[in-house]
Amino acid sequence: MSSTQIPVIETQTERTDLPLVVMPTVIPTMLEPLTACLPTLRDLARVRLHTDTTYDEETIVERMQGADAMIDIGLHISDHLLDQLADHVRCFAFGGTGVASFINLDRTRELGIRVCNVVHYGNHAVAEHAFGLIMELTKHVGRLDREMREGQWAGMDGLDLYDRTIGLAGFGGIGQTMACIARGFGMHILVWNSHLHTDQAAQFDAQPVDDLGDLFEQSDVVSLHLPLTQATAGMVTAKQLDRLRPGSIIINTARAEVISPGALLTRLQRGDILAGLDVFDREPLPADDPLRQVPNLVMTPHVAWRSDGANRNLTKQIMQSLAAFYRGERMNVVA
Amino acid sequence: MSSTQIPVIETQTERTDLPLVVMPTVIPTMLEPLTACLPTLRDLARVRLHTDTTYDEETIVERMQGADAMIDIGLHISDHLLDQLADHVRCFAFGGTGVASFINLDRTRELGIRVCNVVHYGNHAVAEHAFGLIMELTKHVGRLDREMREGQWAGMDGLDLYDRTIGLAGFGGIGQTMACIARGFGMHILVWNSHLHTDQAAQFDAQPVDDLGDLFEQSDVVSLHLPLTQATAGMVTAKQLDRLRPGSIIINTARAEVISPGALLTRLQRGDILAGLDVFDREPLPADDPLRQVPNLVMTPHVAWRSDGANRNLTKQIMQSLAAFYRGERMNVVA
Repeated sequence: MSSTQIPVIETQTERTDLPLVVMPTVIPTMLEPLTACLPTLRDLARVRLHTDTTYDEETIVERMQGADAMIDIGLHISDHLLDQLADHVRCFAFGGTGVASFINLDRTRELGIRVCNVVHYGNHAVAEHAFGLIMELTKHVGRLDREMREGQWAGMDGLDLYDRTIGLAGFGGIGQTMACIARGFGMHILVWNSHLHTDQAAQFDAQPVDDLGDLFEQSDVVSLHLPLTQATAGMVTAKQLDRLRPGSIIINTARAEVISPGALLTRLQRGDILAGLDVFDREPLPADDPLRQVPNLVMTPHVAWRSDGANRNLTKQIMQSLAAFYRGERMNVVA
Repeated sequence: MSSTQIPVIETQTERTDLPLVVMPTVIPTMLEPLTACLPTLRDLARVRLHTDTTYDEETIVERMQGADAMIDIGLHISDHLLDQLADHVRCFAFGGTGVASFINLDRTRELGIRVCNVVHYGNHAVAEHAFGLIMELTKHVGRLDREMREGQWAGMDGLDLYDRTIGLAGFGGIGQTMACIARGFGMHILVWNSHLHTDQAAQFDAQPVDDLGDLFEQSDVVSLHLPLTQATAGMVTAKQLDRLRPGSIIINTARAEVISPGALLTRLQRGDILAGLDVFDREPLPADDPLRQVPNLVMTPHVAWRSDGANRNLTKQIMQSLAAFYRGERMNVVA
């Protein structure tokens, strides 16, 4: 632990009768919305928020001393670290949906430690970002801005979204938000989902498509909004990608692993489709990854979930799930 | 006229009984949609489309020999050129709305020459481009793509449009299309227009605001969709720009001249607002224009009106207005 110069945000320090919640490391943009939510734990727990970022296990252990619960946003908990914390930490409040990638849930179950996640916090953030990718591919604003700053003026034509067809693979909270936005643009909406009620699609003026390959073939823009599960891993195959029409666009803000390994790169290298990707098989994307050489591709570094609104929703749910824990209630409990 | 190598697209060459329509210079992306519309003039006029771009008056005059009507997309007709064409050209079909900037309408009226423009062809193109500017300022896709191609991964948080307020200054076809898109994003919509019926705003879930300055103060995003007229020139003053809140966004895809000269640059230089601009006081924007040094600004080179859909609408109206001329009817006649 480096020094006393890095401030710590603490609440109710005099209330040593209350249990202690510690966040040992921070994603800086989370600090403001976290602080705004602190009143949720008034009279339930003291909170100590460290305001610098560390991934050093020894430092984490030291900072967690005496803590009863941990706020974890983006920190991978190794089994080794978990074992060191398990004698006093009774609850992990994780700032994300896919907590299984960050902590060993079999082990926390064995140890009787509660793990909470957050859900649907980023429906708007992710859907809007997907449209951000679509718009850069069709309106080229980022590219034209760069060209103008280089002194150019030629410009290029855009593509209208109006009257084009978007195909949504997955129709949970994000997929439904996509449909609302697409409707505003005057797009036709197709939707594929493993369990889809026709009337649910109709609510969003969306037309269900039974076969994922048909969705790919019938859409001008395909956007993936599937969770990563055993059932969805590799679900988008080379054969389905082959059915994308020349000039069509594929967007992935979900998880790279829903596409069969290597299949998207192969399809993109044919050069007749466009893609917008926020997620990658390896993250951070290695400097020598062949995707970095592909034209007709717009990439962002897994940021779709990161927005002011998402941060507010996420931190609010973290504090609420901790409050529920201390009240003997259950909220967002995954293990 | 350079050579015979540059092809000319001609229809009904044998029908010398028909009048001749000539387009002496082309914007290349217009050629395909123009060609698709040629059947509109079957048995009404021969058409000759030159497929290269020239702004040389002598060449224009030579190419227009024997022509009865002219298709003009983007060519400024000087009075000198007009006088040379006036003895045989009876109709100018102009590919844009603001034809008065391209040809002297007082003179064409004196000469008894018909001038047609095109209207509402780019409502979707312009509104979608305005959202392209908004999204680059809030989702940073173009910027993050550039950073990723440079090997970075850090990313940055986005801003949600959901639940934010957009203020539309102007509520014609483009403003109304903006409202539809904004509603899809779940934005609150305020609208100011010189002649606005409350029920018209209500159709779009928009709330009328009586004072333009109030609109600026109450909006997270202000987007200008006013035509340039004597009444609107300089209508957005420094005083109104002062009322933009820190962190708010102003978008201009209309005309630079609706903002009081210099006022926007001064406001931007305070560094507390963001802007997306497709239009400029001087176009092309000079290399030494101070706007090029302003951060928190995204610029595109007056391309909002240029899209595949807009091109189709524009070329279709050109051919229809010429067909109307030859049938003795009136369509899109401005003089």
